Amino acid sequence: MWISIKKAKQTESIGHQAQVRGWVRTRRDSKGGFSFIEVNDGSCFGNLQIIADASLSNYESEISTLSVGSSVVITGEIKASQGQGQTTEMVASEVRVTGIASATDYPLQKKQHSFEKLREWAHLRPRTNSFGAVTRVRNRLSYSTHQFFQEEGFVYIHTPIITASDCEGAGQMFRVTTLPLDKLPMRDGKVDMQQDFFGKSAYLTVSGQLEGEVYATAMGKIYTFGPTFRAENSNTTRHLSEFWMIEPEMAFFELADNMNLAERYLKRMIGDCLRDCAEDMAFFDKMIQPGVLAALQVVLDKPFAHLSYTEAVEVLLKSGQKFEYPVHWGADLQAEHERYLTEQHVQGPVILYDYPAAIKSFYMRINDDQRTVRAMDVLVPGIGEIIGGSQREERLDVLIERMKAAGLKEEDYWWYLDLRRYGTVPHAGFGLGLERMIQYVTGMANIRDVIPFPRTPGSAEF
Amino acid sequence: MWISIKKAKQTESIGHQAQVRGWVRTRRDSKGGFSFIEVNDGSCFGNLQIIADASLSNYESEISTLSVGSSVVITGEIKASQGQGQTTEMVASEVRVTGIASATDYPLQKKQHSFEKLREWAHLRPRTNSFGAVTRVRNRLSYSTHQFFQEEGFVYIHTPIITASDCEGAGQMFRVTTLPLDKLPMRDGKVDMQQDFFGKSAYLTVSGQLEGEVYATAMGKIYTFGPTFRAENSNTTRHLSEFWMIEPEMAFFELADNMNLAERYLKRMIGDCLRDCAEDMAFFDKMIQPGVLAALQVVLDKPFAHLSYTEAVEVLLKSGQKFEYPVHWGADLQAEHERYLTEQHVQGPVILYDYPAAIKSFYMRINDDQRTVRAMDVLVPGIGEIIGGSQREERLDVLIERMKAAGLKEEDYWWYLDLRRYGTVPHAGFGLGLERMIQYVTGMANIRDVIPFPRTPGSAEF
Repeated sequence: MWISIKKAKQTESIGHQAQVRGWVRTRRDSKGGFSFIEVNDGSCFGNLQIIADASLSNYESEISTLSVGSSVVITGEIKASQGQGQTTEMVASEVRVTGIASATDYPLQKKQHSFEKLREWAHLRPRTNSFGAVTRVRNRLSYSTHQFFQEEGFVYIHTPIITASDCEGAGQMFRVTTLPLDKLPMRDGKVDMQQDFFGKSAYLTVSGQLEGEVYATAMGKIYTFGPTFRAENSNTTRHLSEFWMIEPEMAFFELADNMNLAERYLKRMIGDCLRDCAEDMAFFDKMIQPGVLAALQVVLDKPFAHLSYTEAVEVLLKSGQKFEYPVHWGADLQAEHERYLTEQHVQGPVILYDYPAAIKSFYMRINDDQRTVRAMDVLVPGIGEIIGGSQREERLDVLIERMKAAGLKEEDYWWYLDLRRYGTVPHAGFGLGLERMIQYVTGMANIRDVIPFPRTPGSAEF
Repeated sequence: MWISIKKAKQTESIGHQAQVRGWVRTRRDSKGGFSFIEVNDGSCFGNLQIIADASLSNYESEISTLSVGSSVVITGEIKASQGQGQTTEMVASEVRVTGIASATDYPLQKKQHSFEKLREWAHLRPRTNSFGAVTRVRNRLSYSTHQFFQEEGFVYIHTPIITASDCEGAGQMFRVTTLPLDKLPMRDGKVDMQQDFFGKSAYLTVSGQLEGEVYATAMGKIYTFGPTFRAENSNTTRHLSEFWMIEPEMAFFELADNMNLAERYLKRMIGDCLRDCAEDMAFFDKMIQPGVLAALQVVLDKPFAHLSYTEAVEVLLKSGQKFEYPVHWGADLQAEHERYLTEQHVQGPVILYDYPAAIKSFYMRINDDQRTVRAMDVLVPGIGEIIGGSQREERLDVLIERMKAAGLKEEDYWWYLDLRRYGTVPHAGFGLGLERMIQYVTGMANIRDVIPFPRTPGSAEF
């Protein structure tokens, strides 16, 4: 019976006949007339050790020359292992080779490759220890997201990817078009956008929030989980042109409820990951970011710190730190400030809230002081902002005022305003960037290494 | 304590003080000096009946004029209901109105609106019975998908949305660009695509399959769940320009394993939906497609029929039916043929397999007869094709031959071919369109009514 290597490595499998299918990670031949083959099938970090005896019919012709990366189907008995670092091993009764990876051509030979180099081989890098582990952690965080929100009674909503709305310029947008660039239809000296596929200009979404609010004000509690896009020419280790975002939105939630939800959500993901990806996480702790396990455990155990923007500015002013960008009330916080707050001052996650209205979006609910809004950012060590959210302005007249001040046209947001016109409710929500969360949990330094096929300026390979 | 209306409607809630928050669906005033208010919060299909006594302080000023769509926060005691069709009701001790929906302006008055009309109000339609139910079913099917594949040991993979590859022309593609249309950079008399964001032409994906194969041949079993795009000018009830697709891909799976997985997956979704969305499904059975419940139950209880393409053609030829498109071996099956097979011949789901190579994609594994490939389509009554898949060609030389025959360039698929070059394995996978699945389960006639914000030619509103 075909079983996963994850299962074959468990004590309960000892004494059973089984079959495993996977790829050779190493092979070494013993003088005693048999070979050790380490096989991995992606189901877990560790390999299964196979003992292939020289008496096997294809030992000379195939097994004794099996190269790294070759695919095999192996049948045998699972036994308790006498070797160190493993509980079980398989004594093969049959080793069937389904595909060879040439020892001279296969790029992933035993020697370590840099992450930069592996980016050029994005089609092969999931076969390495690091990227296999990243992939499993990414999967776990994604599924935790669904489990958490579903168990809390949230409804998963697919907000549109192609949009003719602009979500108040959260970022530069990619145009989506079917017009022939070499033969654009013209009208009155301009490109005739009415002839484009959607009858007008269309773009890739930068956020599903506004559409999420539509569904929150009907279904109560919703979340989105989908790709979002930024056309900024940012070549940093923290930016992608295409990334996945989770955006919950809750009717009848105020800012305090929002902060509480964000904390529980982050803790749920971290807890699931530490428990279910223990082997992968041990690898990250050992090879990628020593100390990450202990740091995440602290996050689980402690309540998040809360600081108003005003308090945070005071902390920064009193810090005695030299910042590149000077701090004063009303200024947007820079990465250096955020990192000081979370890494030095709090030494853990911190939620900043009540930001100056002038530096935040029009849809955030204005406080009674008339100069701050109910915004919140969750900052974590090593990353900075990992969550951004707010209570939304639910008062029609106030929202219209804020839109005017921001230079936005009412008619462009008629449907968004309708949500305030008809049965308006206090509501709130936030956005989490999945890739930054994976970076935080794994310690991977470059965001391009935590998504299967990164899209960045100048690069859309594979 | 705030609880969902779903919870408030359960017998266990009787006798408890609680608070519910939602929107007024109806109000009727009794001569006895109180009002019945039906409140919905999206957590379930049914409303909670609120009894608001005239002795409440805001009875005259607010409650007695409460209009449909207004938002309310109601505190009271949950009691056993004497009314028909409900187990519980709430006797209000406080009715707080958070937002009015004007009785004269609010588009969703009591009268029924057509689905066509509601498409213009896509921001309000989730507040109706039909679209609330569709939204909950969509959510359940989506979560079932994750549960099913996670429990089976699959890894969730995010394949890229923006791509410079073309996936062998599965459909027309949308271009993604940041070039200014009114001032395109030119070079040698042509648009200089090197100056576009990604340094070359980029498009929205039509399928994540090829990238899914990358991860299957590293992680073993994977699935994707993301948006896909078609730029065809199709204005039908079965086509969207943007839709969500689930694409599992499994190393070491052959066609029979693929068929088996598809059947179990469909049954899992249907079973979860019938159990957990019983109230919504009863609505669809009564109001949208009478008989849908019984039909789905039959699907659960019976093994899927299997028919080779060759057998299917024989069935069609012998059927005595008049088809618009004549049938002969080698021809692609049309919707009318598919529907005859699933609705008349099998009267349930049927899996067709082993199609002529000439009408299928280059990557499908060719059979020993050299004229058929290991393709499979799952057909269901009312919809036709709901799943399409195949075993993939894993033999490098055969695949290269097939690509040549299809006019594809090897160098465009270098990384796809590498999967066969290094440790190739038999593998298989399929794609399910989420929206067609929702149509199948709910009986909703138009695919634009099973996605929150449909994108179709000429339409990208909201």
